[in-house]
This record gives sequence, C-alpha cells and structure tokens, in this order.
Amino acid sequence: MRIKFQQNLDELKERLLVMAGLVEQAIQRATESYSTRDLGLCEMVLRSEPAINRMEREIDQAALDLLAMEQPMAVDLRFIIAVIRINADLERVGDQAVNIAQRVQDLGMFANVDVPVDIPKLASLSSAMVRKALQAFIEGDADMAQAVLALDDQVDEMNSAAFRSLSSLIGERPEMTPQALNALIISRNLERVGDHATNIAEDVIFWVRGADVRHGAIAEE
Amino acid sequence: MRIKFQQNLDELKERLLVMAGLVEQAIQRATESYSTRDLGLCEMVLRSEPAINRMEREIDQAALDLLAMEQPMAVDLRFIIAVIRINADLERVGDQAVNIAQRVQDLGMFANVDVPVDIPKLASLSSAMVRKALQAFIEGDADMAQAVLALDDQVDEMNSAAFRSLSSLIGERPEMTPQALNALIISRNLERVGDHATNIAEDVIFWVRGADVRHGAIAEE
Repeated sequence: MRIKFQQNLDELKERLLVMAGLVEQAIQRATESYSTRDLGLCEMVLRSEPAINRMEREIDQAALDLLAMEQPMAVDLRFIIAVIRINADLERVGDQAVNIAQRVQDLGMFANVDVPVDIPKLASLSSAMVRKALQAFIEGDADMAQAVLALDDQVDEMNSAAFRSLSSLIGERPEMTPQALNALIISRNLERVGDHATNIAEDVIFWVRGADVRHGAIAEE
Repeated sequence: MRIKFQQNLDELKERLLVMAGLVEQAIQRATESYSTRDLGLCEMVLRSEPAINRMEREIDQAALDLLAMEQPMAVDLRFIIAVIRINADLERVGDQAVNIAQRVQDLGMFANVDVPVDIPKLASLSSAMVRKALQAFIEGDADMAQAVLALDDQVDEMNSAAFRSLSSLIGERPEMTPQALNALIISRNLERVGDHATNIAEDVIFWVRGADVRHGAIAEE
C-alpha cells in the first residue's frame, strides 16, 4: 500500500515535469518569435495552450484523487499541496507566453526597429529562474530554491529600467510608439514569469522545510 | 466531532471573507487614489499589504491543518482546496492594488491630464466581478459563479480598447506619454483583477459541482 502510494507521488511529480517542459518551451518559442519576428513560432505557442490547460486539469485531478484516497500526512500532504500550487503557476507562465506571442503578432504590422530593452536577456533570466525552481523541485532542495528568490530583484530592476527607457524613447521618437509599447508589455510579461518562478521556489521550500517563506514570513515571525 | 469539523470549516470561510474585505478595500482605495491623486490613499494601500500577506499565510495554515487532522472527503475536501486557491487569488488582487498605488505615486510628478480610458468604470467592473464571485462563494451558488465568467470578456475588451486609444494619444500628443503609459499599466492591472475574479468563480463551481470548469473543460470533454 505504502509502495503504491509512493509510486503515485512519483507519477504526480513526473506529470508536473512534463507540464513544466511544455510551458518552458512555450516561453522560449514566444521570446524567440520576438527576436526573429517568426509568426510561425507565434502560431505554435498559441496552439500549445489547449494542451497545457488540459494537462493542468489532469494534474489537479490526480492530486485531488491522491488527497481523497490516501489522506496523506505531513510532508506528503505538503508535497501534494505544493504540486497543486506549482501547477497553477506553470499554467500562468504558459499564459504569459501566449500574451507575448499575441504582442509579436501585433508587431507584425510595424517595422522591426531597435528599442532600448534587451528582451532576450530578460527572457533568459526569467526562464533561468523557472528552470532553477524546477530543479529545486526535482531534487527537493530548499537551498537551491532559496537561491531563486534572490534573482527576482534583478528581473524587477530590468523591467523598471525598460519602463524608463521606453518612456524616453516614445518622447523622443513618437513614431516608434507601437514598437515601444509592445516591448513594454512583453517586458512586464517576462517580469511576471519571474514572479511565478518565485512562487514555485517558495512552494518547494514549504514542501521540504514545512515553513512558509512567502513574503518573508520566517524573518517576520 | 463532526459538529466541531463543520465549525472549523465555517471559521475558515469567515477568515477568507475578512481577507477578501481587506483586498476589496485596497483595490477601491487604489483606484480612488488614481481619480483624486490622493497620495495619502496610496500610502494606505501600501501599508495594508503586510496585513494581507500575513492573513494569507494564516488562512493557508488553517486549511492545511484541517486537511492534515480531519482528512476530509469529497465536497469538504474540495471546499478546502477551493479556499487555498481563492486565498492565493485574493492575495494577488492585493498585489494589483499595490501596483496601481505605485503608478499613482509615479503620476504625482506629472500634470493631471485627461486620458481616453475610463479607469473608474474599468475598476468598478472588475471589482464587481470579485464581489459577485465572493457572493457566489458565500452562498455556494455555482450559477451565480457562472455569471461572473461572462463578465470577463467585457473587462478584456475595455482593456484592449484602452491600449488602442492610449497608443493613438501618445502618437498625437507625445508630451502626455508618462500619463498615458501609467494609465495603460493601471488598465492592465484591473484586467488582471478580473482574471483573478474568474479564477475565484471557477473555484466556487469546482467546490459546489465537483466539476472543473477551467478553460472550458466541461464543454471540451
């Protein structure tokens, strides 16, 4: 019975990692479509959304079934709750990929001009946060998860800098407004990806240590 | 034992409604601060965040304790999972209120000009979505929750219209760029409030009917 339960938990973890793979690919394609203006890539991102949504529901259902049938305690209970939360965050990362792809489609109408924000760099930073948070989840490593939290300030700072430099650009070159606005929105989408990675890292810590680190809870209490 | 358990569930519900009250007030104050440029209101929104975060953790802990100690089944299990999810969405609505207040602080440096987006209307629509979703939660009314889902298209449409009209404004009146950009971001924040209300409504339906309605799951399957 216990062995079977452990198998079920491992299976749940595997499924969440498949979900994560789909979502990471979507973000990667969306940001590459921005750099290359490849509308075929945008299309692929939009087409992957139903599969991601379906997988989210299946994982949730599997987690609920485990809760209902096995009535797990302590660390196993926290693991399943963490899976439910991480699942929701991954789906929202997928939503950000869709938003980015839609903005790139929008940009198709306008000349491909240089704007003062390094979207590929911001994308690689926020994707790295997601990847590290998942690595921490795979290994059950709370210290690794903790390291993800520190990266979020960098992403936030890049996004704020993008806001400032794009505002100035619009003031000086109003004809570039559509491109600047779309870059601004994409920059915010990537900043939200970093927020979701932070949530995932916090869920890993909650699972492993049993402590709730959100909003600096440990430091405060 | 059973009576005590029911009392615990009722108490959990009460606490979530207190949390909801704080969050609704934060959104209301943040959008009022936009209309009135009252920086004192912004300050109040920023000061309410730690209390909202603390309450989120307490509710999560209470829900986890109930799961661990009572090992509830079926509708009670779904109720507790719904509370955990709704709790996370409410906290994120609070984050949107903070973002709006920060944008209003930013706007303090610039002249108060008219921009072509009706922020108070968008705010009242998205706040109404949150309120109705919570009403459905209080009454355990899945039909009422379903009605919330229909409102989201309206909010999305208003936000898209804001993007278009603010882009044009910037093109014609580049000196209004800072005000237009801040209005654009606030409009997106309010659209996200509507998304969270949608999530809450879906959780109510999941709890009451046992069906997962996310992403049109019922229609698809």
